[in-house]
Amino acid sequence: MTASSQRLPDLQVDPSPPRSSIVLVVLDGLGGLPHAETGRTELETAQTPHLDALAARASLGMLEMVAPGVTPGSGPGHLALFGYDPLTTVIGRGLLSALGVGIDLRPGDVAARLNFATFDAEGRVTDRRAGRPSDAEAHRVIDRVMAGLKPPAGVEVSLHAEKEHRVVLRVRGEQLAAALTDTDPLVTGVPDLPCEALDAASARTAEIVGDTLAQVRTLLADEPALNGFLARGFAAYEPIPTQHERFGLRGLAFAKYPMYRGVAKLVGMQVPAVPGSAEETITLLEQHWGEHDLYFVHFKDTDTCGHDGDFAGKVAAISEIDALMPRITALNPDVLIVTGDHSTPAIYGEHSWHHVPVLLASRWARPSATSFGESTCRGGDLGTLRACDLMGLALAHAGRLVKYGA
Amino acid sequence: MTASSQRLPDLQVDPSPPRSSIVLVVLDGLGGLPHAETGRTELETAQTPHLDALAARASLGMLEMVAPGVTPGSGPGHLALFGYDPLTTVIGRGLLSALGVGIDLRPGDVAARLNFATFDAEGRVTDRRAGRPSDAEAHRVIDRVMAGLKPPAGVEVSLHAEKEHRVVLRVRGEQLAAALTDTDPLVTGVPDLPCEALDAASARTAEIVGDTLAQVRTLLADEPALNGFLARGFAAYEPIPTQHERFGLRGLAFAKYPMYRGVAKLVGMQVPAVPGSAEETITLLEQHWGEHDLYFVHFKDTDTCGHDGDFAGKVAAISEIDALMPRITALNPDVLIVTGDHSTPAIYGEHSWHHVPVLLASRWARPSATSFGESTCRGGDLGTLRACDLMGLALAHAGRLVKYGA
Repeated sequence: MTASSQRLPDLQVDPSPPRSSIVLVVLDGLGGLPHAETGRTELETAQTPHLDALAARASLGMLEMVAPGVTPGSGPGHLALFGYDPLTTVIGRGLLSALGVGIDLRPGDVAARLNFATFDAEGRVTDRRAGRPSDAEAHRVIDRVMAGLKPPAGVEVSLHAEKEHRVVLRVRGEQLAAALTDTDPLVTGVPDLPCEALDAASARTAEIVGDTLAQVRTLLADEPALNGFLARGFAAYEPIPTQHERFGLRGLAFAKYPMYRGVAKLVGMQVPAVPGSAEETITLLEQHWGEHDLYFVHFKDTDTCGHDGDFAGKVAAISEIDALMPRITALNPDVLIVTGDHSTPAIYGEHSWHHVPVLLASRWARPSATSFGESTCRGGDLGTLRACDLMGLALAHAGRLVKYGA
Repeated sequence: MTASSQRLPDLQVDPSPPRSSIVLVVLDGLGGLPHAETGRTELETAQTPHLDALAARASLGMLEMVAPGVTPGSGPGHLALFGYDPLTTVIGRGLLSALGVGIDLRPGDVAARLNFATFDAEGRVTDRRAGRPSDAEAHRVIDRVMAGLKPPAGVEVSLHAEKEHRVVLRVRGEQLAAALTDTDPLVTGVPDLPCEALDAASARTAEIVGDTLAQVRTLLADEPALNGFLARGFAAYEPIPTQHERFGLRGLAFAKYPMYRGVAKLVGMQVPAVPGSAEETITLLEQHWGEHDLYFVHFKDTDTCGHDGDFAGKVAAISEIDALMPRITALNPDVLIVTGDHSTPAIYGEHSWHHVPVLLASRWARPSATSFGESTCRGGDLGTLRACDLMGLALAHAGRLVKYGA
């Protein structure tokens, strides 16, 4: 994980800033594609009187999340919104998986993504996903492993179920390192690959991982399907400069799913409680209002519907959030941003590379339209903006930046 | 020639991609400026019902070919469209000239651009272009030189007429290098400059070039005008990473002029045949359809008319290509791009720095207008895009990229 950003370190933050309030509302996977019959996207189809009123007093634009044509995962998408260039602040897959299941991470921990797999008597992989076991079945077998596993002295090895065959490995101890090769051969009919160290510092960790995976095979020898793991995406957790260090911002995150809470923690936000619903998210925001200067509010349903190819569902999810907007605007934030972490067009059914509409409402906005949608945002005052530059804009609108040069 | 691009190496290409078909149609010098009477550019004046229909199902945008205010030559313009940042993938002038005359180049060859010049009895340059000789006259004198020139053992020196006074020098042999100074003094009334090596590796090549230019002066001592050469733009040919290596794309190029075929070869495209007309270009495309996954189709007339200041001619050239578009769309490519390699506005009469309109039609497009022109493209969903990022977008639309981060 590195944290040099090409452009944002140039921001000169006022060292004794006035209190200010920035609200970042993320509708996950907001960006869409036009419906074949209407030519309108999900956002353009939804009834959004409150977002439209906000657009009328906002600067509009389109966000390029990572780079042209690049489809972001949720991790890079949120890092960008939080002000980190996802091309230079790279978080390994294992860490993102660990954040996704919400486990505690400390500096020096090594994490990896594991798949339950099926091995035959000769040690060849016959199913790279072990028949996609139920969550209950995966939990049962993980418990068996954890009961029998004997890591070396001073090392803590833990397994955490994600979903079906997906598991997260966390190794904790002194002097670990993660320059390690994957053991997943990516095809069946061959043995798994050895976990090899790519540098001297990782040699001991490679041994620990290799020994762990071998112990698992012994412990699970009598299991018909879930009798081993394939590992990939080894990554060590090294803290990155926080938003407070970089921007003078003390953030508070309201998100239901572990991945988003995890990435928020990574940049130094506090995560006070886990909301149960969209309404409760806003209630928590109201309760904590005034304590911090950045409030990140995450809504997931838009993305879920997009993945399901459910155009109408995504439309409804957007309208549902719209109905909650008056409670946010009633707080009278200095800056209110509404956007997404990537596009998940319902007709595409997955994350996509398309630009993401954004509105930034503040008393210093330059409005250009009276509705919030891809069509109005692409003609907006912000133009097409790299998402990692959005936080700088928010700071400017909040009066938190000093002039560059005399 | 270097080939590191800041952003494109980050593209993660699917290692086992589905077959896909991307067509890149380049109308050379497409971008224009408004006619004084109508306020419409060449593209906006032309009758383009088929391009307009395509625009209605395409994402539109404007391409910045190199950098703001920078007018690209054809080499950098095409390199950018092929996915190479022309600011970091720099091809020396000598090599571009060699590509332009269509001569064979092998790794290690050194090329330079020569001008026939006139020298007086004291060795001073009196005309840096030797009175702009006819092509026939230049050929006659080049034949004289080639008949008498004696290069060192193991070295092959060849001269290739370009047009009028313009000639290309190619030196082939072991251990050549091209850190060499120009011999053109850029003014008359002074002798030419010595060709000097700027590093130790180029010392021998400097000697070979110096000896060659001296031999030429002796061989042509009785010529009244064409009695010597001035040399500039020395460059060694080193292969750059191909499109196949970088993007997994196997390209096929259909272009009439050597320069475009040359740049296409440079990035690893195959160049199966030389079309005689625009119609024949499309016929060749149809014949080769299905063999590759990127098809580059080049049309030159738009640029030629722009250089001639022929607004109506450029309009007609655009309409002529428009009439051929149904034959391309009938092939049903996954991605169809129509753009230019730079602007050549007829009222300007030369290449210019202005953004170039682009349309990218695919089933995942975000249409925004029903006609193809500078005005509609500047409000399009792609925004203003660096031309070297276009190939990444095409790969995304073709389903050839994997997600960035989990």
